[in-house]
Amino acid sequence: MRKIIITLTLLLCVMNMNASFKIDRIEPTDWYVGMKDASLQLMVYGKDIRDLDVDVQYPGVRIDSLVRLESPNYLLVYLNLHGAKAGEMTLNFKQGKKTKEVTYTLKNREMAGEKRIGFSNADVLYMLMPDRFANGRTDNDAFKTMRDKVCDRQAPSLRHGGDLEGIRRHLDYFNELGVTALWFTPVLENDSPNDGKNSTYHGYATTNYYRVDPRFGTNEEYRALIAEAHAKGLKVVMDMIFNHCGFDHPWIADMPSKDWFNTPEWLFPENKGVEHQKSIGTMDGTASVNDKYLQTSYKLTPVLDPYASKVDLRETVYGWFVPTMPDLNQRNPHVIKYLIQNSEWWIESVGIDGIRMDTYPYADRDAMALWMKTLDMEYPNFNTVGETWVTEPAYTAAWQKDSKLSEKNSYLKTVMDFAFFDRINQAKNEITDDWWNGMNRIYNVLCYDYLYPNPKSVMAFVENHDTDRFLGTGKDTMALKQALALLLTINRTPQLYYGTEVLMNGTKAETDGNVRKDFPGGWAGDEHNCFTAEGRTQAENNMFNWLSKLLHWRHGNKVITEGNQVQFTPQKGVYVIARQYRNKSVMTIVNGTKDPAQLVVARYAEIIGSKKKATDVITGRTVMIDKNVRLRPRQTLILEL
Amino acid sequence: MRKIIITLTLLLCVMNMNASFKIDRIEPTDWYVGMKDASLQLMVYGKDIRDLDVDVQYPGVRIDSLVRLESPNYLLVYLNLHGAKAGEMTLNFKQGKKTKEVTYTLKNREMAGEKRIGFSNADVLYMLMPDRFANGRTDNDAFKTMRDKVCDRQAPSLRHGGDLEGIRRHLDYFNELGVTALWFTPVLENDSPNDGKNSTYHGYATTNYYRVDPRFGTNEEYRALIAEAHAKGLKVVMDMIFNHCGFDHPWIADMPSKDWFNTPEWLFPENKGVEHQKSIGTMDGTASVNDKYLQTSYKLTPVLDPYASKVDLRETVYGWFVPTMPDLNQRNPHVIKYLIQNSEWWIESVGIDGIRMDTYPYADRDAMALWMKTLDMEYPNFNTVGETWVTEPAYTAAWQKDSKLSEKNSYLKTVMDFAFFDRINQAKNEITDDWWNGMNRIYNVLCYDYLYPNPKSVMAFVENHDTDRFLGTGKDTMALKQALALLLTINRTPQLYYGTEVLMNGTKAETDGNVRKDFPGGWAGDEHNCFTAEGRTQAENNMFNWLSKLLHWRHGNKVITEGNQVQFTPQKGVYVIARQYRNKSVMTIVNGTKDPAQLVVARYAEIIGSKKKATDVITGRTVMIDKNVRLRPRQTLILEL
Repeated sequence: MRKIIITLTLLLCVMNMNASFKIDRIEPTDWYVGMKDASLQLMVYGKDIRDLDVDVQYPGVRIDSLVRLESPNYLLVYLNLHGAKAGEMTLNFKQGKKTKEVTYTLKNREMAGEKRIGFSNADVLYMLMPDRFANGRTDNDAFKTMRDKVCDRQAPSLRHGGDLEGIRRHLDYFNELGVTALWFTPVLENDSPNDGKNSTYHGYATTNYYRVDPRFGTNEEYRALIAEAHAKGLKVVMDMIFNHCGFDHPWIADMPSKDWFNTPEWLFPENKGVEHQKSIGTMDGTASVNDKYLQTSYKLTPVLDPYASKVDLRETVYGWFVPTMPDLNQRNPHVIKYLIQNSEWWIESVGIDGIRMDTYPYADRDAMALWMKTLDMEYPNFNTVGETWVTEPAYTAAWQKDSKLSEKNSYLKTVMDFAFFDRINQAKNEITDDWWNGMNRIYNVLCYDYLYPNPKSVMAFVENHDTDRFLGTGKDTMALKQALALLLTINRTPQLYYGTEVLMNGTKAETDGNVRKDFPGGWAGDEHNCFTAEGRTQAENNMFNWLSKLLHWRHGNKVITEGNQVQFTPQKGVYVIARQYRNKSVMTIVNGTKDPAQLVVARYAEIIGSKKKATDVITGRTVMIDKNVRLRPRQTLILEL
Repeated sequence: MRKIIITLTLLLCVMNMNASFKIDRIEPTDWYVGMKDASLQLMVYGKDIRDLDVDVQYPGVRIDSLVRLESPNYLLVYLNLHGAKAGEMTLNFKQGKKTKEVTYTLKNREMAGEKRIGFSNADVLYMLMPDRFANGRTDNDAFKTMRDKVCDRQAPSLRHGGDLEGIRRHLDYFNELGVTALWFTPVLENDSPNDGKNSTYHGYATTNYYRVDPRFGTNEEYRALIAEAHAKGLKVVMDMIFNHCGFDHPWIADMPSKDWFNTPEWLFPENKGVEHQKSIGTMDGTASVNDKYLQTSYKLTPVLDPYASKVDLRETVYGWFVPTMPDLNQRNPHVIKYLIQNSEWWIESVGIDGIRMDTYPYADRDAMALWMKTLDMEYPNFNTVGETWVTEPAYTAAWQKDSKLSEKNSYLKTVMDFAFFDRINQAKNEITDDWWNGMNRIYNVLCYDYLYPNPKSVMAFVENHDTDRFLGTGKDTMALKQALALLLTINRTPQLYYGTEVLMNGTKAETDGNVRKDFPGGWAGDEHNCFTAEGRTQAENNMFNWLSKLLHWRHGNKVITEGNQVQFTPQKGVYVIARQYRNKSVMTIVNGTKDPAQLVVARYAEIIGSKKKATDVITGRTVMIDKNVRLRPRQTLILEL
């Protein structure tokens, strides 16, 4: 043993001839050959390594350029891998006569890019927060080596211990429920301290783009989880954030260059002295930032406004989301290249089926389009959904790939339907049949689908981690069933939020944690276990079974994924939306009022035709449609004709 | 004299050899040679004349076709006038051996079609109701020969006696105020009875498409008024209605064909028994209609909805606006040809400078596009504005010529900005600075101008004859000045409503008549006369002078008509929108709150540059802009830099 060590030591000495410098890390940690874009940016980090020379002797690899940033501790090596094969490549760093060899692994891709099939409207996405879903391993709940050492289920905004292993153990639950894709809130390392009350359990403050947060698991666990999910017919969507990173990312302590982040004092010297809005509340105001800090206005309209002033546009896009999340400058080509590669790396290394991009319009529009165009080239059948939080289709639609509303093509295939979310959450409290309220809101907003290049790639939802739960503080399922029946039958890609199926409720009034509660049964010793029928209450089972029935019926159902859509103006509060595919029809019928109502079948003759019977999708019962159908208050009926 | 009569009688006998049939009327009453479209439809009416033969011997004129409709009393003669010269053409009607010669006049056009220049964003339109503006002649207030014999100024919905002569006498008033175009509500004959309470004083129930209503004047008076207006630099816009006519139009008593109107029982036999919405209130429910009557739902979204059901689309488009206004079937090619010719006839015969088309989306979309395309060919520089009453730019924009939002090109150059109307009327009651209310509504809606092919051809307004007055029941001018300052400086074609300038107020709560009051001073003996400074109260003069100053400043001002537009997110309720043209800039500044505020000049550096002084457009005073500018509560400031 000792002999081996000595030999190894000797060997290292030979390899690092005369070395007095040190390479601390290279990102990406490894890479793949055979990409359509053969260029590779290596971000090399180490004390005073900026001015090193680099040499590489490996078949098919050549150095395109070396870029020396302002910090003495970064060196960007741009390689061209055209024609290179997988293997161990040696990078030879030199400083005068001192040299250091570093081995860098080039891997084969598991499959060609076009074979990666993203989520689509044939899927139903289930969004969950890894910290809050299930705690599979208690040995990773907290680490003394990390800045936040606390795991405390009693504190709504501290870490609760949920992890990838917890998700893995419940893959069958997703199958039972009937969803087909999982979207986890971000799993990358968020190594930031807590302030006693708030932590980065949510994952939106990345401190390492190449490492799963140890509290959630390892990269290998993530990869294994995805493989197991795939085996069970489940896709996995990765949540990414290009707009900002966490304040504790090493890039802050040692900034690669002063234009790595959007730091207004040098970006806009002509704006000196301008009073920026700082009055808007920040999500958590813990980080200490200097005077030059620019807060985003959170106003998204300037990004598309043809009349936007420069000052407003800058505030929105270059302002920081919160003080703890430094705003990355994607206009810096090295920054966006780093981020693009990072997304490709996760696709290649763990096999994700889609990306959810956070705070999409807050990042630089051109840079984001470059990202999406690049991904579209490498993975033409992959899918990405961008968070576009404005409740007007006229806004959201401009962000979808090939939109005619914008001169700039975003290449973003899927956008989020905050309009549907907004309207259904208003409608739920309205039991009127006037033209602008209640179910008429849904009717009137779907009309604007002509704005979207591709309505079926618009991802709709009724709640998520950033909104009140649809149930609010109550448990009334009547309106919820209406919302979900519409969500799952209209011309959209639907997304659910964990716990909807078992009546999880709560509002953000006190704390975001109230809409991000632990899934009951996810922790050892939980008295209430919603993962099993036995553990669920009767009301929870009622909801779970109803939803599960609907989801399984939807699965592979071409009437929903390919069918023509026809909607009818609500009549006395009764809203009907129909789908048709070949000789099959489905009618989703919701009585949006608190009174008994009738479906006056003659009005729907263009769908019903001469048919006399239909099947209630949920109960399987036959419903006679040769005469008017009575509807209970707030009843939801999905009929298959 | 007697000799002449005898000669004439003999002559007529010769002309009408053996005639035993009678031609009661031919429409158009005359026509013009040299149109690009050389075809002419003559609608010939007379008892049992359908099966007549027709012959014409006139150089350059040939009969294209004869169309015999279902009624025995109509004959459509389609002529081709290619190459014909002006003159008296003889139409020779024949029934067996019986013949009748009718002289028909072909006129020269006053000018080529392309020389007719429509209104534009360089104009400010002043909308008025002829019955309510000024009574120039009392001898035409009422006619015993007409169905409505009443003129009663005390009744809000009966006729008040205003007329074209009243308008003519006040042309100088419009010059003094500074508007450049007049839009009268319809002036065509509305020969319908009143029911003691309601009448057709508004003009939207046409009973003769070729005749000015005698209560307003004659065709010749209309023509003379327009000529005089032109001489004073004023354009005239004619209000037309293609969607419907009045119930007392001869076409109802003797329907040319059963598909002349949208009568559901034969149009949609498959819809038999369908329960249509009849619960929606009608404007006035006086006319007696048969059981087959179909009420429009007034719901406009189905017209553009990609998912619209047939039944909804039919209700909207083929339903009648009110029972007293039969819905014309523009899909019938003879109907739309009649209407197209009618619009051309008024352009040629009286020289109007524009058309305002009523209830635009309620009429058949393809037929209306054909109309606009035809007019665009004949009069490429003419302008038409369509009433598109939906408060979302995403809807309205789809109706503008060359919109990318619709596969069907409407060819409609100008659309009405109900979104601006809606937002400014909400904002006026809101003195908050939160992102979605107050002046932020204007900011956020103008953002969507990217939806319009041509924002400057969008006609904006703050009130009209169908809405509450902006002032409501009050007289507070602070919010009104803000609204008008924006209206007259943004990238729009602005429209005012008569009386705004002298604080006319009122709401529709009790009756539409309350927003259509008589203009004070328009009637002989009016104690209150708003046509003169002496007659106006101090408050009225304040408003009049303020608006007049602004209008005259706007006139010919390229900063407004051609300038670049830049808007700034409201800061603590202070909204700034700037225009820039070459080295000139204008800033419209409104303090949308009830508190004193500041214009923090540094924020507007991109407009202000190094300038230190500006001129208050209204007062002419110098305003220092090298330091922050104090604003009074609700203050409006238009600065020229």
